[in-house]
Amino acid sequence: MSKYWSEVVRSIEPYVPGEQPQIEGLIKLNTNESPYPPSPKVAEAITQNLISRLRYYPDPNAVGLRDSIARYYQIDSNCVFAGNSSDEVLAQTFMAFFQQDEPILYPDITYGFYPVYCQLFGIKAKPVPLDENFAVNLSDYNQPNGGIIFPNPNAPTGLETPLQAIETLLQNNSDSVVVVDEAYVDFGAESAVALIDRYPNLLVVQTFSKSRALAGMRVGFAMGQPVLIEALERVKNSFNSYPLDAIAQAAATAAMDDVGYFTQCRDKVVATRERLTQVLQDKGFSVLPSKANFVLAKPPASHGAADLAAALREHKILVRYFAKARVSDYLRISIGSDSEMDQLIATLEALGL
Amino acid sequence: MSKYWSEVVRSIEPYVPGEQPQIEGLIKLNTNESPYPPSPKVAEAITQNLISRLRYYPDPNAVGLRDSIARYYQIDSNCVFAGNSSDEVLAQTFMAFFQQDEPILYPDITYGFYPVYCQLFGIKAKPVPLDENFAVNLSDYNQPNGGIIFPNPNAPTGLETPLQAIETLLQNNSDSVVVVDEAYVDFGAESAVALIDRYPNLLVVQTFSKSRALAGMRVGFAMGQPVLIEALERVKNSFNSYPLDAIAQAAATAAMDDVGYFTQCRDKVVATRERLTQVLQDKGFSVLPSKANFVLAKPPASHGAADLAAALREHKILVRYFAKARVSDYLRISIGSDSEMDQLIATLEALGL
Repeated sequence: MSKYWSEVVRSIEPYVPGEQPQIEGLIKLNTNESPYPPSPKVAEAITQNLISRLRYYPDPNAVGLRDSIARYYQIDSNCVFAGNSSDEVLAQTFMAFFQQDEPILYPDITYGFYPVYCQLFGIKAKPVPLDENFAVNLSDYNQPNGGIIFPNPNAPTGLETPLQAIETLLQNNSDSVVVVDEAYVDFGAESAVALIDRYPNLLVVQTFSKSRALAGMRVGFAMGQPVLIEALERVKNSFNSYPLDAIAQAAATAAMDDVGYFTQCRDKVVATRERLTQVLQDKGFSVLPSKANFVLAKPPASHGAADLAAALREHKILVRYFAKARVSDYLRISIGSDSEMDQLIATLEALGL
Repeated sequence: MSKYWSEVVRSIEPYVPGEQPQIEGLIKLNTNESPYPPSPKVAEAITQNLISRLRYYPDPNAVGLRDSIARYYQIDSNCVFAGNSSDEVLAQTFMAFFQQDEPILYPDITYGFYPVYCQLFGIKAKPVPLDENFAVNLSDYNQPNGGIIFPNPNAPTGLETPLQAIETLLQNNSDSVVVVDEAYVDFGAESAVALIDRYPNLLVVQTFSKSRALAGMRVGFAMGQPVLIEALERVKNSFNSYPLDAIAQAAATAAMDDVGYFTQCRDKVVATRERLTQVLQDKGFSVLPSKANFVLAKPPASHGAADLAAALREHKILVRYFAKARVSDYLRISIGSDSEMDQLIATLEALGL
């Protein structure tokens, strides 16, 4: 604390990301990274010529990358906004649309960054409880609001919200922006991108950090009608005109264009998730039906979640534990490679599970 | 404009960066980029192993890069904050320190992003006129303020403010933060970094985009006492925990560590600037004595600045013209390679100068 700090800096509780420890031989199942490296096309895209041209500013509008995303989703490029990670895109989304008189709504158990953005930008928030099955029940969101945001699938539950419920929400909330945070959508949920044509109040946010294996490259994007994209551009150009460096633009474009590799890795993760879910259930875990690249699993009564996380860590396996109401009996386990899952399973057995 | 936009998005006037046109054979003297490529060590640092590890999140704290900067300036690493360009670092600086009751002060002719940050974050501002010689006269800043920021050297004038005047300002303003924006300091001005030990209210901001030839990589940093750095970290961790991608961290570290290459390029730019200044003066231009990698130059009365900029563009030479009071008779010309300057000079002669 210091007399030099702005009031907001004094009062804020910053987001705490999952650990990134540098431990030899660690099996890292705590931050939902891809178990597979990025597309080989990414390395090909980072040429000597590109590196020697780093003396120039990058394209401030990331046109090539936005074109590539637009091709993949068969939408117009002016329906795409790109930024330095989906966290940045979300922060700019909160500034662009959520500074309203009414509170914004999001699930009470969800991505921990939403309440932090609200604090940072002085936005009123009203968390809406998950239902008794841990689901985001969108009929609970029919109340006055300055905007709505939820991940689909939700984190850390992994549960999908059906597209039909999202469409009903969009119809019932035509005066406020509904943001669907699809960080994990590629692993089995249905994207709301198909709805942006019809709903001017829909913004869909995605990331290259999960299904496209580029967490280290920091690229995220949003899709919506041009008037929403324009608002994000106005915020971007009032903060940092060139948020995406030249290498990130080239790498993300290469990853987006390599549809075959993407599909192959995604399918492997989904198959591994289903296998792990079955094994955990056989061991007495209660596992929520995940459409993401992680599972939220409650160990049998013999093993407390916090203790089990600590024991796994002793065996160099890192999973995520949330000391938070309703999920404190659960562990969030990222889906690794099959071999990493085999080591996890063997370790659970060594721990008497 | 849309009913979905937050009030701030409606009212803001975003920053307009210099153009980045893709024209074959263009001589680009409009955005103060380096005429020389980044250090060869940058390409060496971008290894296949680093690329294959992009599936992991990067180090959120950029420890290696901060250590490298700290080594160069012989300060502690906890006196260094790193971000995705100095524009981002400046935006976070405005949030962290300048949301105060009193207005913040900056020169009336200066970097165009300062007033934009003030709009974005609802900060009161009071521009202070440059003196009759276009200098930042810091005795004019002895008035109530919530913070002070100015570039040294200033842009677009290129003029240096003496370190002694900065020290007096720091002493007279012990209750508010003074930010010295040293984007161009390496080209001949004296850095205020030497003062951070003694002044807890001093923050120095620098960039890799100019003297270190990495505009395309987007890396900036701030230096100050740990309590100021902590405020910036709190803002960063409430916005985007991992602002610097893994390749940007590696590239910037390599560039910072290659002191020999840096010095050599810097010295060439300074020598070329002195040569260009002399030639322009011989042609009747009025040239402000620059300590930056650009010059602000007023053509002789026979040639209006705006017309001359347009004529140079016809000859594929891009310089920066500001349609703004007091500087509208001037052109800002980035220092290119000697060969680029020769082409500029030849073109000026072809235009009758």
